[in-house]
Amino acid sequence: MIQKHIVVNGVPHNVFVDQEATLAKVLREQLHLLGTKVGCGEGMCGACNVILDGKLVRSCVTRMKRVDDGAQILTIEGIGTPDDLHPIQRAWVKHGGAQCGYCTPGFIVSAKALLDQNANPTRDQVRDWFQQHRNACRCTGYIPLVDAVIDAGKVLRGEKKAEDLDYKLPPDGHIWGSDSYYPRPTAIPKVTGTIKYGGDIALELPPDKLCLALVQAKVSHANIKGIDTSEAEKMPGVFKIVTHKDVKGNNRINGLANPANKGDGKERPILCDKKVFQYGDAIAVVCASTEAEAKAAAAAVKVDLEVLPAYLSIPAAKAPDAIEIHPGTPNVYFYQYLRKGGETKPHFDRPDAVIAEETVITSRTPHMPLEPDCAFGFPHDDGGIIIHSKSIGVHLHKAMIIEGLGLADDKLHLVSNPMGGTFGYKFSPTNEAIVAACVMATGRPCYLVFDYHQQMQYTGKRSPFYGTVRFAADKSGKLLAMETDYDVDHGPYCEFGDLLTIRGVQFMGAAYDIPDVRGLGRTVCTNHAWGSAFRGYGGTQAQLISEIVADKLAEKLGMDPWEFRYKNACRPPATNPSGQVLDSYSYVEMLEAIKPKYEAALKKAKAESTATHKKGVGLAMGSYGCGLDGPDSSNARVELNPDDTITVRTAWEDHGQGADMGGVGTAHQALRPMKVSPDRLKFTWADTRNPVSGPAGGSRSQVMTGGAIRVACENMLAGLKKPNGGGYYNHAEAKAAGVPTQYDGTFSVPGTPCDENGQGKPFMVYMYGVCLSEVTVEVATGKTKVDKIVFNVDIGKVNNRLIVDGQLWGGVAQAIGLALTEDFEDIDKHKTMIGGGFPYIKDIPDQIEIVYFENAREHGVHGAAGVGEIPLCVPHPSILNAIYNATGARVTRIPALPERVLEAMKK
Amino acid sequence: MIQKHIVVNGVPHNVFVDQEATLAKVLREQLHLLGTKVGCGEGMCGACNVILDGKLVRSCVTRMKRVDDGAQILTIEGIGTPDDLHPIQRAWVKHGGAQCGYCTPGFIVSAKALLDQNANPTRDQVRDWFQQHRNACRCTGYIPLVDAVIDAGKVLRGEKKAEDLDYKLPPDGHIWGSDSYYPRPTAIPKVTGTIKYGGDIALELPPDKLCLALVQAKVSHANIKGIDTSEAEKMPGVFKIVTHKDVKGNNRINGLANPANKGDGKERPILCDKKVFQYGDAIAVVCASTEAEAKAAAAAVKVDLEVLPAYLSIPAAKAPDAIEIHPGTPNVYFYQYLRKGGETKPHFDRPDAVIAEETVITSRTPHMPLEPDCAFGFPHDDGGIIIHSKSIGVHLHKAMIIEGLGLADDKLHLVSNPMGGTFGYKFSPTNEAIVAACVMATGRPCYLVFDYHQQMQYTGKRSPFYGTVRFAADKSGKLLAMETDYDVDHGPYCEFGDLLTIRGVQFMGAAYDIPDVRGLGRTVCTNHAWGSAFRGYGGTQAQLISEIVADKLAEKLGMDPWEFRYKNACRPPATNPSGQVLDSYSYVEMLEAIKPKYEAALKKAKAESTATHKKGVGLAMGSYGCGLDGPDSSNARVELNPDDTITVRTAWEDHGQGADMGGVGTAHQALRPMKVSPDRLKFTWADTRNPVSGPAGGSRSQVMTGGAIRVACENMLAGLKKPNGGGYYNHAEAKAAGVPTQYDGTFSVPGTPCDENGQGKPFMVYMYGVCLSEVTVEVATGKTKVDKIVFNVDIGKVNNRLIVDGQLWGGVAQAIGLALTEDFEDIDKHKTMIGGGFPYIKDIPDQIEIVYFENAREHGVHGAAGVGEIPLCVPHPSILNAIYNATGARVTRIPALPERVLEAMKK
Repeated sequence: MIQKHIVVNGVPHNVFVDQEATLAKVLREQLHLLGTKVGCGEGMCGACNVILDGKLVRSCVTRMKRVDDGAQILTIEGIGTPDDLHPIQRAWVKHGGAQCGYCTPGFIVSAKALLDQNANPTRDQVRDWFQQHRNACRCTGYIPLVDAVIDAGKVLRGEKKAEDLDYKLPPDGHIWGSDSYYPRPTAIPKVTGTIKYGGDIALELPPDKLCLALVQAKVSHANIKGIDTSEAEKMPGVFKIVTHKDVKGNNRINGLANPANKGDGKERPILCDKKVFQYGDAIAVVCASTEAEAKAAAAAVKVDLEVLPAYLSIPAAKAPDAIEIHPGTPNVYFYQYLRKGGETKPHFDRPDAVIAEETVITSRTPHMPLEPDCAFGFPHDDGGIIIHSKSIGVHLHKAMIIEGLGLADDKLHLVSNPMGGTFGYKFSPTNEAIVAACVMATGRPCYLVFDYHQQMQYTGKRSPFYGTVRFAADKSGKLLAMETDYDVDHGPYCEFGDLLTIRGVQFMGAAYDIPDVRGLGRTVCTNHAWGSAFRGYGGTQAQLISEIVADKLAEKLGMDPWEFRYKNACRPPATNPSGQVLDSYSYVEMLEAIKPKYEAALKKAKAESTATHKKGVGLAMGSYGCGLDGPDSSNARVELNPDDTITVRTAWEDHGQGADMGGVGTAHQALRPMKVSPDRLKFTWADTRNPVSGPAGGSRSQVMTGGAIRVACENMLAGLKKPNGGGYYNHAEAKAAGVPTQYDGTFSVPGTPCDENGQGKPFMVYMYGVCLSEVTVEVATGKTKVDKIVFNVDIGKVNNRLIVDGQLWGGVAQAIGLALTEDFEDIDKHKTMIGGGFPYIKDIPDQIEIVYFENAREHGVHGAAGVGEIPLCVPHPSILNAIYNATGARVTRIPALPERVLEAMKK
Repeated sequence: MIQKHIVVNGVPHNVFVDQEATLAKVLREQLHLLGTKVGCGEGMCGACNVILDGKLVRSCVTRMKRVDDGAQILTIEGIGTPDDLHPIQRAWVKHGGAQCGYCTPGFIVSAKALLDQNANPTRDQVRDWFQQHRNACRCTGYIPLVDAVIDAGKVLRGEKKAEDLDYKLPPDGHIWGSDSYYPRPTAIPKVTGTIKYGGDIALELPPDKLCLALVQAKVSHANIKGIDTSEAEKMPGVFKIVTHKDVKGNNRINGLANPANKGDGKERPILCDKKVFQYGDAIAVVCASTEAEAKAAAAAVKVDLEVLPAYLSIPAAKAPDAIEIHPGTPNVYFYQYLRKGGETKPHFDRPDAVIAEETVITSRTPHMPLEPDCAFGFPHDDGGIIIHSKSIGVHLHKAMIIEGLGLADDKLHLVSNPMGGTFGYKFSPTNEAIVAACVMATGRPCYLVFDYHQQMQYTGKRSPFYGTVRFAADKSGKLLAMETDYDVDHGPYCEFGDLLTIRGVQFMGAAYDIPDVRGLGRTVCTNHAWGSAFRGYGGTQAQLISEIVADKLAEKLGMDPWEFRYKNACRPPATNPSGQVLDSYSYVEMLEAIKPKYEAALKKAKAESTATHKKGVGLAMGSYGCGLDGPDSSNARVELNPDDTITVRTAWEDHGQGADMGGVGTAHQALRPMKVSPDRLKFTWADTRNPVSGPAGGSRSQVMTGGAIRVACENMLAGLKKPNGGGYYNHAEAKAAGVPTQYDGTFSVPGTPCDENGQGKPFMVYMYGVCLSEVTVEVATGKTKVDKIVFNVDIGKVNNRLIVDGQLWGGVAQAIGLALTEDFEDIDKHKTMIGGGFPYIKDIPDQIEIVYFENAREHGVHGAAGVGEIPLCVPHPSILNAIYNATGARVTRIPALPERVLEAMKK
């Protein structure tokens, strides 16, 4: 240890530190300045940016021995406070710069350092700065962040008043609608670094808290012959080592398998007992006083393994000699057929048929939230176990883990923390059952915070499709039939693998009017990272394949891709592959609107292409459903509080997408007769003690939970309306009049799940989009750069513009990563943010144009559909098609890494 | 555990807490808001005051289960920051409200709560408020705190600008002198709660830190037959249990005994091995991950004791059948004779002699700093052990403990933390060796923070004197001779007990011209709390006895007490009891100055006395030395830094008395030719790696270390003076010219220690004072209230007015406590602040008038003497004399509790 005298935010501190400790750890764990976030922990994300002696540094890689004595350090806490925001923070609020908010402190500190040295940067200089300092954002697509810096600069230069950045209510007081830039309720806590994420709250638990460290498998498939914790148990600080023997229930996560699933859905252990199924599987947990002690003891636990062949791909798992990963269940364990209209063979056999076919392999995409997975739990004095995590399905996860833990229903409660992004990976339970088992075994508060390698290696991934699509058209270009055949590599655990496979039949070719369709999807068990939800779940993979084939067919037909799509887009009364009429036939208007931009882009690309840099333009269109398959429903409650604020109580989980604003905006609109000012509306963090709202996935929440909120609000309006027409009771009046102050609402949609032929009404509300991409491909390297995106979307009526702009910009950015860089195939190489292909600001164009086509939805609250998934369903095939347009290279495996583009160019 | 949603300083927090946890613990240990201090920990001191839902509460006794969900909490961190002080904080700086600073956050929060509800309080309302809310201050005498609230109120009401509270340098730029109210360098950190005390830094140590809990004796005297740690070692979180067997050296504190001492001075173990010598003695130390774990394991350590008779008083320890507490050393182990002038017997035998005699017993006074004792230590990467504590003698303590620990000189460094007051108890090592032993045994950072009961029961106390003084005068009232005989109850450890005993011969009757003196003092070993330094060390006890006897003699002579003192006060060439001429013969001018006030007070007391409330006036005079006995010296260094600031590097420990200002003020005055602005002068916390400055006790630091600083500065002036007379080199110029930038200074005084007859020149600089007290005694109860104090002091030239006013007001307040309430005789009953008789604001008059007689001292830097001890040497006898004047009750044992006054009134 050494001593350093440092001045943090103007306050002198004598700190006594391990000289190898990072500045981030010292700031967070010793000085408790929790606004500084640790994302990747290896200098790749900038969440930990602080200003050290005037220089922007990543504190997670700055060792204390390199911090000078007397050093001056500025953290987010020193920039501004909730009561006294810095102009950069005000601008961040105005532009919706904080979505999940986890990157926000690092970006704001970075922006401060930039503006300190360049008071009037251009947009490109801002982008260069964030690129240079590796400020990574996974939510926003970076555009609003640059907007915020530019605006803050104006205030700092005196060209604008700070107050002008603040939101002003319109005269009629509404906050619902595409003209509304009302800031989300969590904006100020996020821009000031005062919101606490799970890893922050973990540090604020009582002193008897235990840090958990996992003993994880370093192989992908093995039989467990023994677990020896004896030496580790004697190590300093170890309170207990928890293994499967300490788990009180059946030690299984219930995957809630589809009845057609060949397994029982209970193949995932909470803690491994008989087998290891994938790299990183948890075998034991050390519960110790400190992180270092827990990790040291975890390394000392001896696990005796009989290593088995690892099946890391569909072909390997399907090979004839492959053993069953879960003995008794075949490795191909679920089948979904698609039979719409008549047989397709006759169309393909027609002599005049024009046929296109392609086999496409999609990636095992890592979600790469800024915040690694984390959870904590504690024994509540009421006798129950409380687990706080990044769950985006608290009731769902409770149902999945309670039997494994052996707890009664009223003895387990799950709560969502503020989260630094999930993008779907937390639709699966990850750490909840492990932490609960440790709380039960120790009786102490416990916390488990992953490092980024664990986040990458031991949370679910987007499952790869190995899929073939064939289109048949007549000579005029009219689509006659589609045939699909695909395997889904869902990793070792079935959880929702069936659901994902069903998404294949629902979304391959979903934008097109195709009378006759036949298809088959299979779910395959492998030993690679387990499949979890990810924005665009299934629609992403399905529409990538069919949109590549659509372009290929257009070429065969000698048609322009736009013409082909315009001719074949669903028009009334055409149905989607599930045989369902569309809830908004907006492809045609969106295609028409994009046409002049498309033509101009084609002209520009042709003009600007050079021998070394080829430019191209691509199109794609598609859709995604809002909800769970079939008859979805949700519940909400609104409560008039004694101070006349109104709490909107739901389990709408906020993973950064904006559940806070979703709930408040929806309720405000529904309550407009009561003339409630929006700051009187309070949202709640999701909790199993709140009404059952269902998970925050599949873009269902605005529709379903929004609907339930609307109903609850309508019930409140009816209940609080004074009999004489003199307005509404306030809390005191309601109590005096004996009128209830709490009102429940339930909302359901009359969907039907897809049957064995893939036919049904799985979603009553859909989103639609048409996307135009412009790219440049460097001929020598194959490296592709997206220059511009135009994305026409029909997400119904818009709740709040900041939220949907952010969702769409951010989703498009993820689509670019999906198309070009992101992967988790190599367990070692891809375990970091850079290794996993995280898109930084210079990977994302500054020009992402979003155009809204606001067709009100019958089943959407106030006419709204969802938004989150659609940008992960449409833009990425347009990029692949643009690469082809630029170079003639048909890339059929994503990510379209330079080497793959080069290889395709050679063909 | 439970969850609470609370809003702290405007920031929402979800906290997960033990419902029995106190709000103070949650704020400090979970939310790391360390500005909220825990003093007594039982609601008696207000250091932990916060505002909870608009109401001032003591957070140390507010359980979380009583904090409402949604509660709004304001702590010192939410009131103002170093860059943006609240007007109350600015006023606190202006008035020198923060001395040690430990009570400051609680007072400022309390003042905020008051001004929130009463914008224009009177002084009495402010005093009532602080009394009602038990805001306890041990440093200031409360006067500047009331001044600050009144001034802040003016700003808050708009009657004054906040800026008008700020210090402005005079045109000539000086900060030295009695006209200087320059705020101490630590003022802003203290008023904002951002300065970190030992218990705060302990919480900021790296995560592998170990909390120490002592296994302490619950009896006062015993043989140790066995220590069984086996069960405790297996308990959760226990890293190691350290006993005497783990101590690498001789396990003894070296008491640095006087050669005439009958023991070797090494009777105090670091950890008890063979015997327990007093209640609370440390037998073992549990080193564990958390405080709760350490305490639980400490309770489980089994100690097998053979209980011995406990000698808790001088008579008990001197009884013929008393065994030797330290076998081989008699319980009366040191003798100091006083032989000045001729024999005294002839004077007392004179038939016309007027003789007065009294036996007085003084109290085992507890220091009662706001901050309980604390320390932490760690293994430095350079191989040494670093201990941070409240040491006010870092080099002294290193010398006392290094042999016991078995460390080489370069392997142990002691450092002073910012301290919440010591008032001398930390002149003795307390926890340093224990913490060092634990760091050595564990290799980890370790901390030990006492609770208030431990502070009371297991730190040194002011040693009681059982003393008799006899005066003989002639009929005219001229003093002829004095005889003294006294025992000093120094508890079980000799450390400086000899020194203290010598103080008896130096200060009994020290203000008087007494030609012939004979005396004898003895140091007695007992099993009660060990004796340590306390402001006024020895002078307090000595002059209490002789000033009571002086009043008694005056009465016998039929003289007014003032007349008696005026007649007999030392005038040139009279010498003090050590045979030394005075360095300032100021008694006469101080007595003359006080006379009209005295006479007016007498008249007023007579007029206002009633049958139920008797008023009286008392006088006392006395002196105290500045330094250690004999040839004291100190060292300092001044360093011109690259940024042209100047570091004043010493080991002048700051226990709140103002070493920061002492060093900066002294250096600034010495460096005036260089025209250094005072904010360029930096002080250092005391550290054994700094020059040896000697301990910060005995009011020696301003004289001795101040002198060393002056010499170092003069060396700097000479070294940096440009040859051409063109001013002084800055750092860059000095480096370029090859001129040194560091300058050392050594300062010595030519004293001689007292010889076996008590004769010598123990101090080359003294302080002098004359005090007038006005009291009211309630006849029915005997309860005494001090109405007013006038204190004329000669402390030489004044460095800084805020500092010396604060020292004197605060010292007078302690003198009132000493006279009336403070005691630590009953180990159980007196273990709390209230039990120990802590003086609250209503115990201290708002009228304490300090009048300076600035006679420059030959050996004092810039003419200054010290200041800290004199208010503990003079006011308290004046209070006892005033009680007599009011009631005729001669109280001869302090504290003069109501029952003692009643009893004396009956006589």
